[in-house]
Amino acid sequence: MFAKNAWYVACTPDALVAKPLGRTICGESMVFFRDADGRVAAVEDFCPHRGAPLSLGFVRDGQLVCGYHGLTLGRDGKPIRMPCQRVQGFPGIRSFPVIERHGFIWVWPGDAKQADPATIHHLPWADNPEWAYGGGLYRIACDYRLMIDNLMDLTHEAYVHASSIGQQEIEESVPVTRVEGDTVVTSRHLENILPPPFWASALRFNDLAHDVPCDRWQICRFFPPSHVMIDVGVAHAGQGGFDADPRHKVSGIVVDFITPETETSHWYFWGMARHFKPQDRTLTESIRAGQDKIFAEDREMLERQQLNLSQHPERQLLKLNIDAGGVQSRRIIERLVAQESGAT
Amino acid sequence: MFAKNAWYVACTPDALVAKPLGRTICGESMVFFRDADGRVAAVEDFCPHRGAPLSLGFVRDGQLVCGYHGLTLGRDGKPIRMPCQRVQGFPGIRSFPVIERHGFIWVWPGDAKQADPATIHHLPWADNPEWAYGGGLYRIACDYRLMIDNLMDLTHEAYVHASSIGQQEIEESVPVTRVEGDTVVTSRHLENILPPPFWASALRFNDLAHDVPCDRWQICRFFPPSHVMIDVGVAHAGQGGFDADPRHKVSGIVVDFITPETETSHWYFWGMARHFKPQDRTLTESIRAGQDKIFAEDREMLERQQLNLSQHPERQLLKLNIDAGGVQSRRIIERLVAQESGAT
Amino acid sequence: MFAKNAWYVACTPDALVAKPLGRTICGESMVFFRDADGRVAAVEDFCPHRGAPLSLGFVRDGQLVCGYHGLTLGRDGKPIRMPCQRVQGFPGIRSFPVIERHGFIWVWPGDAKQADPATIHHLPWADNPEWAYGGGLYRIACDYRLMIDNLMDLTHEAYVHASSIGQQEIEESVPVTRVEGDTVVTSRHLENILPPPFWASALRFNDLAHDVPCDRWQICRFFPPSHVMIDVGVAHAGQGGFDADPRHKVSGIVVDFITPETETSHWYFWGMARHFKPQDRTLTESIRAGQDKIFAEDREMLERQQLNLSQHPERQLLKLNIDAGGVQSRRIIERLVAQESGAT
Repeated sequence: MFAKNAWYVACTPDALVAKPLGRTICGESMVFFRDADGRVAAVEDFCPHRGAPLSLGFVRDGQLVCGYHGLTLGRDGKPIRMPCQRVQGFPGIRSFPVIERHGFIWVWPGDAKQADPATIHHLPWADNPEWAYGGGLYRIACDYRLMIDNLMDLTHEAYVHASSIGQQEIEESVPVTRVEGDTVVTSRHLENILPPPFWASALRFNDLAHDVPCDRWQICRFFPPSHVMIDVGVAHAGQGGFDADPRHKVSGIVVDFITPETETSHWYFWGMARHFKPQDRTLTESIRAGQDKIFAEDREMLERQQLNLSQHPERQLLKLNIDAGGVQSRRIIERLVAQESGAT
Repeated sequence: MFAKNAWYVACTPDALVAKPLGRTICGESMVFFRDADGRVAAVEDFCPHRGAPLSLGFVRDGQLVCGYHGLTLGRDGKPIRMPCQRVQGFPGIRSFPVIERHGFIWVWPGDAKQADPATIHHLPWADNPEWAYGGGLYRIACDYRLMIDNLMDLTHEAYVHASSIGQQEIEESVPVTRVEGDTVVTSRHLENILPPPFWASALRFNDLAHDVPCDRWQICRFFPPSHVMIDVGVAHAGQGGFDADPRHKVSGIVVDFITPETETSHWYFWGMARHFKPQDRTLTESIRAGQDKIFAEDREMLERQQLNLSQHPERQLLKLNIDAGGVQSRRIIERLVAQESGAT
Repeated sequence: MFAKNAWYVACTPDALVAKPLGRTICGESMVFFRDADGRVAAVEDFCPHRGAPLSLGFVRDGQLVCGYHGLTLGRDGKPIRMPCQRVQGFPGIRSFPVIERHGFIWVWPGDAKQADPATIHHLPWADNPEWAYGGGLYRIACDYRLMIDNLMDLTHEAYVHASSIGQQEIEESVPVTRVEGDTVVTSRHLENILPPPFWASALRFNDLAHDVPCDRWQICRFFPPSHVMIDVGVAHAGQGGFDADPRHKVSGIVVDFITPETETSHWYFWGMARHFKPQDRTLTESIRAGQDKIFAEDREMLERQQLNLSQHPERQLLKLNIDAGGVQSRRIIERLVAQESGAT
């Protein structure tokens, strides 16, 4: 279950350098390439000639050439030429609205007429020289909503990530969830605690004492269709926490774009945007490597959870207060999907 | 098709040291762990909170802690605690009767009310200092009854195990099968033959001449639900065979616990108990390594046989005199399964 | 969809040296072996005793012995003996007409009564000392008809094989297709072109100038049920092309036996017969290695095309003039299959 009339992150620009990129998004098999103007295009990954995947072909002069017999298509999916053929009467293939913005490539897998670029999720830190970003991509074999649950309840850090960002105080503090229109916010504040290893390192990297009591925050925000942005950070205790002066804190935004591939798999674009030392590429890479290790810990748990749920579709799960973030996010998704099917 | 109201070997104690063990038995996904008293416990491998597999969690103070969000369960499957939660109203999960005995861990996947520890298969050689035991475990992708067939008709030794325990005289001698209540016994006696390589080695290990005529025996015993114990050995010819004085023979019991995993896969616990040189650990390991090699020869045959049968479910197979052991064993299983479904 | 009343290439003689060979042809699981006279035999790969695959057994005195319990069968699939058993009443298994000819082993997976060895495809170059042959075998996970399409339209050489036999002039020339009874012929002639790398090498190997204008031909011939023979070659320009004197040309026959395994997989026997330097084994191996590299390039395309078609069975594909060879070949196959089902 996913909304199709929505903008999803399809890939990052580095994945679209020389060859076309085949990727399935919300059950639609697509191929991405750049046209002659350098603009990203997305069409079905299915040549109308003999059904070959166009992602095995190549791009010539900004047009997509099938690698089997050379049928050449434009960014709108219409055949342009083919050796010794008149292609005017050839059927075209579907194209998808696609836009490059904020350092990501966004695609709209649903009804193209409803695609409004103004509704692409805004990333205030992107293209801002005071911020730096680093991230990565996993393919994870579970329903994307299990990943939303995971990120909207960070209680699991105390267990899954015990050696990096987990700490016992997390599980001793209940998060608070509120719904604001189509946004869900789950917040947890820890006061006067010692920073766990990941944040102790971040304090050191930022030239702050790392062995003193701190206040820590996690403010998870769900945005439709499936983005989760998490304000995270620590400040020296008593300096105002999340609102402390930058001289006393280290903070960032954990960025999660969770793009459905099929009903039971998704593309997980993860990363961190930070507001300190933006020029320090070594630091960017160091944080990226740390996150990579942390998110890999979620992977086995989520994929095995999916297997368990697939084997026991009849079982009711618990919805505790710590689960409220995921529960409310799913309600918003369900409402969007119902609107789509009602409109159809 | 398998009886569920029965004691099956689930694992050996060495598999239950530090972490909980997830294993599917008779279609039931279970997790095994030791409680605070060191007693083995078995519950469903499904956390009632969000469906995570409990086998990815850990044991703390003899309680099973889910590795995702920390729900803690006891050996009865009832929630005990969870950070910041009142768990009294939480649903529990199913627990399974489980007992450690004779060096194995036995589980009852069916109706717990009918589980009587007195009915666990007795192993007279276990815990007896005059005997030694060594063994191993395979997961084999075939119906467990194909393994019972295999072990209740050792004619195949002449083919599958031609280089170790097979010898031409085996196939020249028809085994005799008799049914005694719920037990099936298939016996084969070879007289005045030269011992094959495995038994020649065993004679040597036991300081007996190995290049002289011998009498050899194989007495296969099926016990419900799916255990096969085989008296095997050789004695110098004319000394009484199976009943010969220990000074003239070398003998043991091939131990086979055949535990269904699914309808088309099983856990095969194999080993040998021997009544000579029980303190000689090098000998134990040598025999174990020999058996490992022999049983691996059965594996490909059984898994490929399963594929053939799955592709041709309509075909009738032959039931020859050499097959009587397997045929009679299956009848007992069918009767037990019919009793169970009648009782339900 | 495949005709079963037809002769297909099952294997080459080198695959039938010591052990029996198991192989599925047109959905029939078969095992091949040589009888006491050295003649090839083919029976079902299913022992009538317990369903074990006979291909795991062995051949003794020209009879097929099951490797599980020793049931021994003849080339007609009838049980001959089994230790301690009277096999007269045992059911046999199906045998298939099979013949070794022209360096290949041919099997008839359909109604044995209709199998006439005279209808085996004739290979005039086989067993002719003026010709040499080298080839290989792939298992490819796609409908065999996609391979026929591939070979009856060599336009794809300009794309899939751009670095070896492809050249731009190919796609600029439309092939001509004609149907002659049950044979389809698709011809393409290129005049006054520079030979591509593969043919430049062949000219050099044949002591001919390779950097001069040439005429090139590709004459693809489909024969039922699924053989494609392609006359290929280059001649120095203006010497008569295909009909040029051997002193001015280098030529051969690309040999393709495309044997269905299942509806979505096939055995692809590929090779080249050449009419020059037949004694030069180094040349044979060199050409074989070149073809191996070229045909491996088709593999990914065809298997991914199959995946696309399986996901979108409802889509209509284009049938262009370049596709005529494949389209006409499929019509002949469809007619043969219709005849078979009508006759049944």
